[in-house]
Amino acid sequence: MFNLTQPLRQAVQAAADVLATRFLDRDRTWSEVTERIARLAAALIARGLKPDDRVAVLALNSDRYFELYYAVWWAGGAIVPLNTRWNDRETVYALDDSESSMLFVDDAFLEVVPALLEGCGHIRTVVHMGEGEAREDLLSYESMVAAHEPAEDTMRAGDDLAGLFYTGGTTGFPKGVMLSHDGLYISGLGGMATAISDMPDYVFLHHAPMFHLADAMMIVTGSMLRCTHAMIPQFEPKASLEAVQRFRATNAIFVPTMLAMFVRHPDFDQYDLSSLKLIGYGASPMPTALLRETMERLPHTELFQGYGQTELSPLATMLAPEDHVLEGPGSERLKSAGRVMPHCETEIVDESLQPVPSGTIGQIRVRGPNVMLGYWKQPALTAETIVDGWLLTGDAGYIDEAGFLYVVDRVKDMIVSGGENVYSVEVENAIMEHEGIGQCAVIGIPHEFWVEQVHALVVPKPGSEITEQEIIDHCHEHIAGYKCPRSVEIRREPLPLSGAGKVLKRELRPDKTTG
Amino acid sequence: MFNLTQPLRQAVQAAADVLATRFLDRDRTWSEVTERIARLAAALIARGLKPDDRVAVLALNSDRYFELYYAVWWAGGAIVPLNTRWNDRETVYALDDSESSMLFVDDAFLEVVPALLEGCGHIRTVVHMGEGEAREDLLSYESMVAAHEPAEDTMRAGDDLAGLFYTGGTTGFPKGVMLSHDGLYISGLGGMATAISDMPDYVFLHHAPMFHLADAMMIVTGSMLRCTHAMIPQFEPKASLEAVQRFRATNAIFVPTMLAMFVRHPDFDQYDLSSLKLIGYGASPMPTALLRETMERLPHTELFQGYGQTELSPLATMLAPEDHVLEGPGSERLKSAGRVMPHCETEIVDESLQPVPSGTIGQIRVRGPNVMLGYWKQPALTAETIVDGWLLTGDAGYIDEAGFLYVVDRVKDMIVSGGENVYSVEVENAIMEHEGIGQCAVIGIPHEFWVEQVHALVVPKPGSEITEQEIIDHCHEHIAGYKCPRSVEIRREPLPLSGAGKVLKRELRPDKTTG
Repeated sequence: MFNLTQPLRQAVQAAADVLATRFLDRDRTWSEVTERIARLAAALIARGLKPDDRVAVLALNSDRYFELYYAVWWAGGAIVPLNTRWNDRETVYALDDSESSMLFVDDAFLEVVPALLEGCGHIRTVVHMGEGEAREDLLSYESMVAAHEPAEDTMRAGDDLAGLFYTGGTTGFPKGVMLSHDGLYISGLGGMATAISDMPDYVFLHHAPMFHLADAMMIVTGSMLRCTHAMIPQFEPKASLEAVQRFRATNAIFVPTMLAMFVRHPDFDQYDLSSLKLIGYGASPMPTALLRETMERLPHTELFQGYGQTELSPLATMLAPEDHVLEGPGSERLKSAGRVMPHCETEIVDESLQPVPSGTIGQIRVRGPNVMLGYWKQPALTAETIVDGWLLTGDAGYIDEAGFLYVVDRVKDMIVSGGENVYSVEVENAIMEHEGIGQCAVIGIPHEFWVEQVHALVVPKPGSEITEQEIIDHCHEHIAGYKCPRSVEIRREPLPLSGAGKVLKRELRPDKTTG
Repeated sequence: MFNLTQPLRQAVQAAADVLATRFLDRDRTWSEVTERIARLAAALIARGLKPDDRVAVLALNSDRYFELYYAVWWAGGAIVPLNTRWNDRETVYALDDSESSMLFVDDAFLEVVPALLEGCGHIRTVVHMGEGEAREDLLSYESMVAAHEPAEDTMRAGDDLAGLFYTGGTTGFPKGVMLSHDGLYISGLGGMATAISDMPDYVFLHHAPMFHLADAMMIVTGSMLRCTHAMIPQFEPKASLEAVQRFRATNAIFVPTMLAMFVRHPDFDQYDLSSLKLIGYGASPMPTALLRETMERLPHTELFQGYGQTELSPLATMLAPEDHVLEGPGSERLKSAGRVMPHCETEIVDESLQPVPSGTIGQIRVRGPNVMLGYWKQPALTAETIVDGWLLTGDAGYIDEAGFLYVVDRVKDMIVSGGENVYSVEVENAIMEHEGIGQCAVIGIPHEFWVEQVHALVVPKPGSEITEQEIIDHCHEHIAGYKCPRSVEIRREPLPLSGAGKVLKRELRPDKTTG
């Protein structure tokens, strides 16, 4: 049984005076940060936090976000990191669904607090974790830390709930994925065993959003490696280039869209990026041209790719640095999601859930201690997703004879745009709420930066004179901006349907569409 | 929850046609070996093996020993690997204590079977796993494999018992250390995360005894890495040099005594050892001169050191290759047992079990999923050893500010000779059974090859005229040869005693002794 606060104790033991966090002009050592975490945990407990209680956070990246993850675990609670790109309606849904009793917000989200509180009755405590002046109507993060003596660690571990990570749902509602201490810890160990081995003087740059499980994984793994965690509030290519140079960052993770903006930035050559030793990427397929460009522009930097999903805490396969071969034998592996990792089992099954031979396409399923505890308050959906101990990923793929996984399709009909998952159904539901729409389908079409762009095909009702812009504006009222179509094609002919009456999206995909 | 057969399935998935085992002139692939394991598991079940049932094995190294580990796990049982250097009395004790119902023996131990069966009533089945002619009175390993269709894996996992590993006891009786699937699996993951990272085309040479947990750990870890396992029946320096060359071995583990015989062998230069990439050592402190010599003679080979004990499945700390620095800053770390590993917590406590500051000597204790389930049938001893979830190692040491552990003494008064643990108390008990002895103390004194040599200080009873050789001969009748004193000093003065009446061994240790 692992507990996620163990790396803190080990870091204090082995690296007490090494910097743990660097943000703005604040540098703190592992012993300082661990004491602050224990004090904040005491404050959470004093405010009534009980084991398993959810603590939500809506904030850009900061050293305090890092501390909050650990303080919630130290105090025995479960963290609920909220997507900063959601609209208020979506945020309220997650706050309400998770029954979070506390909410931490930074300056960027202070203004929406009244709207969130109005929509959600569970929140008893709101804490301001930003840089600005303390607000009289909110608790202050620093006052909480200052006012309490360090608490004893509650030592939650194993299958105890560590967090609810919300992910878009095929039904249109985000689902709270329940992840455990063991799941997150063992995923981190698996990553270390595969690609992210021990290296002295690691400096990990958190420029990817800390609410994302991909970055949370690096909070866990980076701390196991006793690395220094440096943060910038959010990814912006120039700020990120500057941060690598300033912090002498050795590590960072990227989604392909971020990486493209980073390596193709006009000022790229003006920065000293020689510290970058290892970068990870994932969350959507990497265009080979971008991978080649990255390897050429950062010749001293090794790359690894992770594949998985929130339900897998999140890692299942990894393409290790030595498998990043541009030419000749092995170069075809760049199209894969890497090899199955040692902390879980990954296999391909047919429609009756029987394993298929190597090379055969089927659904990817995974079992092991990294599989989620389940979907929060959704036992039926959990039972559909975890069958005989195996997590059905909903992705289609095959595994070759050397154990490399190739993901060929996403059964759940998901678009990955700029590293964010967009479930078509959710966008389609939003579009169909417009009274002028008769039929619609949402698909991903290739985009240079976003990898995929959300594209809607719409058939208006007879007599309706709706425009493309009206449809986009309508979506923005209902769902987060990143989910809204960037392009709309209005058709007058009905969309092709399957025998079961579903839109045949494969007939609409880029190579078939006219738009 | 991990199960120890998972690596087999992953190896078949990713390396079906890669050689899994090489022994004598037999080479078998992962798919062949896994099928044989499943067939042997079926034979065990057909012979009545139930979950948790113990299967003992008394044999030198072979491919079949490798298969047997996995077949027992596949069938749901617990393996009991017997020390091949024990005398019959000790072997019968372990067979009897473990209540093993099956015993596998190879050619080297066929002759002792009648004596073992006479002393132990639990054994229902004896299987001959050797190379020679099948014996009519024993089951044949190959017939069992041939006669059964592959069984379904019983999928034992987590805290389920995987094996009883017998270790010398301070009370003079070996104790069965109960290790679980999770414990052994997670120790392997920890090793991979720390030093033994994924590398293609590993060939692991099993020349250390496969009954030892150190080698069993490499069976587990090597299979997670899908490496080829090559075996020789037992360590012998020339055979080992030949095997490295023949199998192009990339990896092996050594105790310091083996390593000294290996690198100092007169024919060392006649062998092509260029394949050796990484060697591990442990089980006793490594003399710095030997380490230096090894690094000079094998300049292309990286080294790592593991520290732990059977009760820890067995790993707790590791000195990684990058910490093997001969000169200048960091070179003092060669005297350490390495850094605490990420799969468990290691700390130092005082006599009241309170943690002490960095640099302070105290008892080493460890907690984590690698801690044993307990001592077999010894709940009281287990409760003394695992206190508040922490395993008390009985070793004394300190941890420096960079998290490196230095082992300074063995509280349990253990001598490590040639990589074998010899508990002084056990030897003292044997000596005291001689009627002519009034008082005795057994200590380790330095030895070039064995690192420590068992040395006895004896005070005869008044009037007794016992000789040194008589004492040594007497010991050979009672305990295994490797435990017997190699040297004896007869004293006429009483040995110095502590206030509590115990012999003050620190007054007798090498720098104080005259012998």
